[in-house]
Amino acid sequence: MIELEAGGGVPLYEQLYRQLAEEIRSGQRAAGTPLPGRRTMAGELGVSVNTVDTAYQMLAAEGLARARPRSGFYVQETGGMLRPAAAPAPAPAPAPAPQARYDLSTGSIDTELFPARSWGRIQKELLYQAPELLQRGESQGDRALRVQIAAHLAAYRGVACTPEQIVVGAGIEYLLGCLAHLLAGSVAAIENPGYARSRVVLENSGLPCRLVDIDGQGLPVTGLEASGANVCYITPSHHFPTGVTMPAPRRAQLLQWAAAAPGRYILEDDYDSEFRFTTRPLPSLQGMAGPQGPVVYLTTFSKSLAPGIRIACMVLPQDLLARYRREFALYSNTVSRFEQQTLCRFIETGMFARHINRMRLAYKRRMESFAAALRRELGPRLQLGGAHSGLHFLLTLPGAGGEAAMVRAAAAESVQLRGLSGYYMAHAEACPPDTVVAGYAALRSGDIPAVAQALGRAWGGAV
Amino acid sequence: MIELEAGGGVPLYEQLYRQLAEEIRSGQRAAGTPLPGRRTMAGELGVSVNTVDTAYQMLAAEGLARARPRSGFYVQETGGMLRPAAAPAPAPAPAPAPQARYDLSTGSIDTELFPARSWGRIQKELLYQAPELLQRGESQGDRALRVQIAAHLAAYRGVACTPEQIVVGAGIEYLLGCLAHLLAGSVAAIENPGYARSRVVLENSGLPCRLVDIDGQGLPVTGLEASGANVCYITPSHHFPTGVTMPAPRRAQLLQWAAAAPGRYILEDDYDSEFRFTTRPLPSLQGMAGPQGPVVYLTTFSKSLAPGIRIACMVLPQDLLARYRREFALYSNTVSRFEQQTLCRFIETGMFARHINRMRLAYKRRMESFAAALRRELGPRLQLGGAHSGLHFLLTLPGAGGEAAMVRAAAAESVQLRGLSGYYMAHAEACPPDTVVAGYAALRSGDIPAVAQALGRAWGGAV
Repeated sequence: MIELEAGGGVPLYEQLYRQLAEEIRSGQRAAGTPLPGRRTMAGELGVSVNTVDTAYQMLAAEGLARARPRSGFYVQETGGMLRPAAAPAPAPAPAPAPQARYDLSTGSIDTELFPARSWGRIQKELLYQAPELLQRGESQGDRALRVQIAAHLAAYRGVACTPEQIVVGAGIEYLLGCLAHLLAGSVAAIENPGYARSRVVLENSGLPCRLVDIDGQGLPVTGLEASGANVCYITPSHHFPTGVTMPAPRRAQLLQWAAAAPGRYILEDDYDSEFRFTTRPLPSLQGMAGPQGPVVYLTTFSKSLAPGIRIACMVLPQDLLARYRREFALYSNTVSRFEQQTLCRFIETGMFARHINRMRLAYKRRMESFAAALRRELGPRLQLGGAHSGLHFLLTLPGAGGEAAMVRAAAAESVQLRGLSGYYMAHAEACPPDTVVAGYAALRSGDIPAVAQALGRAWGGAV
Repeated sequence: MIELEAGGGVPLYEQLYRQLAEEIRSGQRAAGTPLPGRRTMAGELGVSVNTVDTAYQMLAAEGLARARPRSGFYVQETGGMLRPAAAPAPAPAPAPAPQARYDLSTGSIDTELFPARSWGRIQKELLYQAPELLQRGESQGDRALRVQIAAHLAAYRGVACTPEQIVVGAGIEYLLGCLAHLLAGSVAAIENPGYARSRVVLENSGLPCRLVDIDGQGLPVTGLEASGANVCYITPSHHFPTGVTMPAPRRAQLLQWAAAAPGRYILEDDYDSEFRFTTRPLPSLQGMAGPQGPVVYLTTFSKSLAPGIRIACMVLPQDLLARYRREFALYSNTVSRFEQQTLCRFIETGMFARHINRMRLAYKRRMESFAAALRRELGPRLQLGGAHSGLHFLLTLPGAGGEAAMVRAAAAESVQLRGLSGYYMAHAEACPPDTVVAGYAALRSGDIPAVAQALGRAWGGAV
């Protein structure tokens, strides 16, 4: 029995639709039976034909009823194509990896080193004193922040740029997506092994990628030439994940390659260059090429601040900058202005530089004590690679049964780490044997002996 | 005179390179003259040939020197191709529009309504109590936030979804870019007039767009069919910028269109549905279609919180969700986890619902008092359109000299607003005459009489 209530806030067609839908779902109206004619129904309920028609069309749109030409509406045989009576089970989220007690994966940081007090104080001041930050900001990022970043990158990474060349974005992945669009029609060479994520982003964004096997100095120009690519994406400061630092002659060769033809670009991902423990870091390739050189410099604050705070930036040469401004003029920036301006003050006041120094020292000590503990437990067979910088190293242990067995045995001792071959996107047969990647950034100092002992048990101990 | 200092921290090749570069730039070494042979130079300086070679290659990479086959290196004639002696003028940033005293553009909000105290308190608590938020979060956004958003959208917008279907991102533009990739190979119909920004984002991301002229009920299905598109992007709650609310029968027709062939989708941008002042809002099209329906629901917190805080979300049907998880599995979320979790608690504690109610009331009063003031100043010729919802209305004044003259005259009185025809991406000749778009969200209550008087002076006053 359908009852409609006029003036109750719910439109009549909506009331009629809801009651009919309920009757169909509950089976009161059987599949295949006709609904009353529109005029009949309108007359019975004292509403307009239009009201009934709207309700019937809504039922049809939901798959609860079906119109037959010159015959009216029928209850749908399938009983609701678009909204089944029983809601389907929600798609299961990708299963999270079981939580190991000790996490040696890359990409985490030590949250205790985060300057929560200073960061929080600036954030609070801005919230109360700078309500204008609630409004939309500049598309490339707030200029004040870009000024600070330009000065910081010049001082610490030898990057040669003006604030105008900087684009701030919510992560390197977002910026790589923009770049891929600016470079439409190009082909990118990427390092193998390397960052699978960057490859996926570039390809998803329409930039086909060719894998080029690295050698002991990083991406070789011969391989790059052979790939036919006109763009290359590299991590010259600290190759991910092997830790190779590209020496100056190789850098010069790459710049010569880029200068040899128009439309060639180098995308320099300087993702964790803050953490270099032994020698003075080489300045960025971008700085070597100069502000008009064919290098796009990319860096992230994920390591130097926190992965949960999404701020990254890129430095564009003038031609790509002009293209960026044409194509992305209408885009809003993707980073919260409060976090942009908090970072801005953090750099401006010198807190960021001090924070990086403090972190570098803390991570260096951790690396050294972890390496020492591992040597004690695993003996002289152990080789550590790429430990001079970054927040992870390569750990090679001949005689421990091979990479896969090492990873399994570590997991059995509740230590999570990845084999090096997992970073090969092709030619995994060329992967150095018996080698895993161990990140130590999130490792508590107090846990170091226990982790080393666990790996000692896992891999057979010192020989 | 070149002098190298061993063991000084700067590699020898770098020292040599810098001194030679300086000599070339200063003109001490003239263009076209040869550099000393590598062996000669190495012998003179007491360094290896390799060191000299690296320095020469670096000069060549910078365009300061040039290698001639079988002849050695020469100072480049052009004097530095890649890093000119004088840095080029930085690219000028796009000229900002001159600041008008009264800003009636759309897209701003009243910052005084922002709940800075509550927001700041939650943010501070999280910073001190939840250091785990510094680490990387879930790709689709933190689950706790997605649970809150799903409940909020169900209660306020009739959206039918599970938290698993929600993807959080740094702005609708970012999410539209992701969607365009998921819908690769499709063609999208978009409303004309409409959001130029959405069109640019979709097309930049590889989804070609066809313009479909709206009628008094929004996007017509006939036009949609004629466009050949299989996707349509619409603003059914409150068409931008005309304010048309799509009535239920038209919604039903669109859902029927979408159900009539596989691969058809409706992208429902519900950008400012919180602000509806008169009638109860129609529930979302997504809710009408059901959780498995072919509708992607998009909304932003730019209006309900602030444009400077970049949080938006989309609700994906299962098939697109499965594709999203395949294609974007490796992507990091683009929203800071602190802001995600601040919003989460803000919704969870009921503060968000109260905040929206408070804002709705404040904006309704502002709209009414602005409309009354305009009627006083501009007389009975004035027509206001689309004032029942949203944060702007259309203002039509026959006899005021036409749209362009109205915008110019307003600007001369320091009132910034845009003509309606500016939102037409084609067929601007169909634009209603004498009509401008006036946003009132950022208008201070105390300024309303002055703005109305300024427009009265600009447009000839009451007749």
